[in-house]
Amino acid sequence: MLKGRQTWIFESKPVIISSAAVVGPFEGKGALAEDFDVIHEDVWMGADTVERAEKRLLEEACNVAIEKAGMKKEDIQFFISGDLMNQIISSSFTARSLDMPFFGVFGACSSSMEGLALASLIVDSKAAQYVLAGASSHNIAVEKQFRYPTEYGAQKPPTAQWTVTGAGVGLIAQQGEGPKVTSATIGKVVDMGIGDPYNMGAAMAPAAADTIENHFKNLNIEPSYYDLIATGDLGRVGHELVIELLKKKGIEMPKDKFMDCGLMIYKDDQPVMAGGSGCGCSATVTYAHLLKRMKKGELKKILIIATGALLSPISYQQGETIPCIAHAVSIEM
Amino acid sequence: MLKGRQTWIFESKPVIISSAAVVGPFEGKGALAEDFDVIHEDVWMGADTVERAEKRLLEEACNVAIEKAGMKKEDIQFFISGDLMNQIISSSFTARSLDMPFFGVFGACSSSMEGLALASLIVDSKAAQYVLAGASSHNIAVEKQFRYPTEYGAQKPPTAQWTVTGAGVGLIAQQGEGPKVTSATIGKVVDMGIGDPYNMGAAMAPAAADTIENHFKNLNIEPSYYDLIATGDLGRVGHELVIELLKKKGIEMPKDKFMDCGLMIYKDDQPVMAGGSGCGCSATVTYAHLLKRMKKGELKKILIIATGALLSPISYQQGETIPCIAHAVSIEM
Repeated sequence: MLKGRQTWIFESKPVIISSAAVVGPFEGKGALAEDFDVIHEDVWMGADTVERAEKRLLEEACNVAIEKAGMKKEDIQFFISGDLMNQIISSSFTARSLDMPFFGVFGACSSSMEGLALASLIVDSKAAQYVLAGASSHNIAVEKQFRYPTEYGAQKPPTAQWTVTGAGVGLIAQQGEGPKVTSATIGKVVDMGIGDPYNMGAAMAPAAADTIENHFKNLNIEPSYYDLIATGDLGRVGHELVIELLKKKGIEMPKDKFMDCGLMIYKDDQPVMAGGSGCGCSATVTYAHLLKRMKKGELKKILIIATGALLSPISYQQGETIPCIAHAVSIEM
Repeated sequence: MLKGRQTWIFESKPVIISSAAVVGPFEGKGALAEDFDVIHEDVWMGADTVERAEKRLLEEACNVAIEKAGMKKEDIQFFISGDLMNQIISSSFTARSLDMPFFGVFGACSSSMEGLALASLIVDSKAAQYVLAGASSHNIAVEKQFRYPTEYGAQKPPTAQWTVTGAGVGLIAQQGEGPKVTSATIGKVVDMGIGDPYNMGAAMAPAAADTIENHFKNLNIEPSYYDLIATGDLGRVGHELVIELLKKKGIEMPKDKFMDCGLMIYKDDQPVMAGGSGCGCSATVTYAHLLKRMKKGELKKILIIATGALLSPISYQQGETIPCIAHAVSIEM
C-alpha cells in the first residue's frame, strides 16, 4: 500500500528467513567480526583479479544464505542485486552462476535497500514466494575504478571513506520465521552541489535527511518508533551533517539510537578515515549484525537508510556535482 | 500473479497512458522516423559532452511523455530507468532533474523491459498510481566506453551492431486509455561461451530463446497468440540464431510476425552492419513505433523481448565470456 508519494507498507509482512554476510580480512579484524558468516584471510579470495574476488564474495554470501534456509537455488524465483562495478558485473556474473531469473539494480551504495525494497514488494504482491536480495563491494576493485589503484598509495583527506570488502544477502519469503520487512521509503535524487568524491558523506547527507523526513511523515511516526535507525555509509562527516539537517526540519534524532553502518563496522583503531562505505557496508552490517541482534531480542524495530552517491568517474571528470539518493527499509520482529 | 517460476500476469492490466521517443539524426533518417516525437539534427544535442547529450535525450523523452499525458512531474510516484553508461549516469542525472523517487536498474539493453516489467508490477500491486519507465543509449558515448572512440575510425566485423542514439519512455498508470501491459517474463542469465563483443547478437540469442520458451510454456500459449513478437537488439546474426534455437526446442516462430527492433529501426541502405543495438533500440521502437501501430489498430497483441549483454570492458579484457539476459513484456489493446 502506498503512503504519501513514496512509502510502501507491506501488508503481508515479508519475512527475511535467512541472511548471510561474507567479508574480507580487514572487516574480519573489525568491530562486527563475530557476526559475519565467512571471513576471508586473503583479500583476493583466491581469485586472480579483484573483480573476480568481489564476485566470489557475493556468490558465497548467496550460497550460504540459501543453505542456511535449507533450500535449493531452484526453489527461489528471483535474484535482485547491485554493486559498484561498471555494468554491475559482480551481480550479473553471480546471477549467471545462480541460474535464477535476475533483476540488476543500481543505486550505488543504496543498492542494498533498493534491492530489499523491491524484493519485499515482489513477495508482498505474491509475484514470488522467495526472492534473494544482495549487494557487494570490494575495496581494491572500487578504489581502482573510482579513484586510484591502492598500490599507488595516494593520500586521502580525512573526509574520505574506506570501501568495505564484503557482500550481504537476504532471502525474503512470504512465510517463515525471522525479522519482517514492514515498510520502505524510496528516495528521490538530491544534489546540494558537492562535487568532491573524497567527501561522499557530506554529499549523501541531504538525500538521507530527505528520505528519513518523508518516511516519518508518510507513516505518521516519530524516530522513537524505532529501537535503532542506521544510515548506510555516511561516515563521521555525513552522520553529523544529517543530524543537523534533520534538526532544521524539526526532527530530533535520539543520539543513542541513530547510527551509521559505516561507523559500526570497523574498530576505532582501524585507519578508515571518516568511516566505511560501499554497497557491502550497509548490506553486511544489516544482514549479519543487525538481524542477529533482532533475533537475539535486543532490537525489535529498526530502520535502515542506505545512501548512494550516483556519480561516475566520467561525471566527476566533467565537473558534475554528485547526485545522491537514499532508500529506507524498516524491519520488525 | 506468478505463473511458473518467472512469469507475471498483471491482473489489473496497467495502462501505458503515454509514451515518447527522442532520437538522434541518424535514427531520424531511418525507417521509423515518422514515429519519433523529437529528432535531433545534432548528435551532440547542443551539449558539450556526449554523456550530457544522452542525458538530454532521456530528459526530453520523459518530459514529452509527461506533457502528452497532461500531467505534472509531481503527480508521478516513481521513475525507473537504466542505460549503458558506467553507473547509469544518464538515468541518475535525469532522475535528478525529474525530482521523482527513483529506481535505477541495469540489464544492459534489456533495461527497457526490466523497467517496464517492474513499473507494471508496482502499478498492478497498487504501490503507485503512476510510474515512468525509460531507457536510453547514445552511439558515440557507448562506442567510446565499450569499444573505441568513433573518431578513431576502427573497422568492425559484419557481426557488429550499431548503437542507437535515442531514449524511449512510457508512463504506466492504474487506469486510463492506451495499450495495456498484461504479462512479463523475467529472464535468467544465459552464457553459451561467446566472448566476442563484436558479436553480441549471437551471444544474446540463447537468452532470448530461453525467455521466449518460458513465456509460452508458463502462459500455455503459442506464438500465434501474438500479432507481433519482437526481440530487442539481436540484429541479423542473432535473429537467425534465435529462430534456429527455438526450432530445436520445438517452437516454430512465424516468419511474418517475428521481428527484431534492431532490424526495424534503420533503412536497408544505412551502414549499420548486423543492425541496431543499445538500450535505446527496443525502447524507442516499442514506445514510439509499436505502440503507435497498436493505437492505429494494426496490432492487438505484441510481445517485446529486450535482450542484454551483461559484459563490461573489464570483464571482456579479463577473458570472461558474455553473460546475457532477456526480459519479455506483453502489451495488448
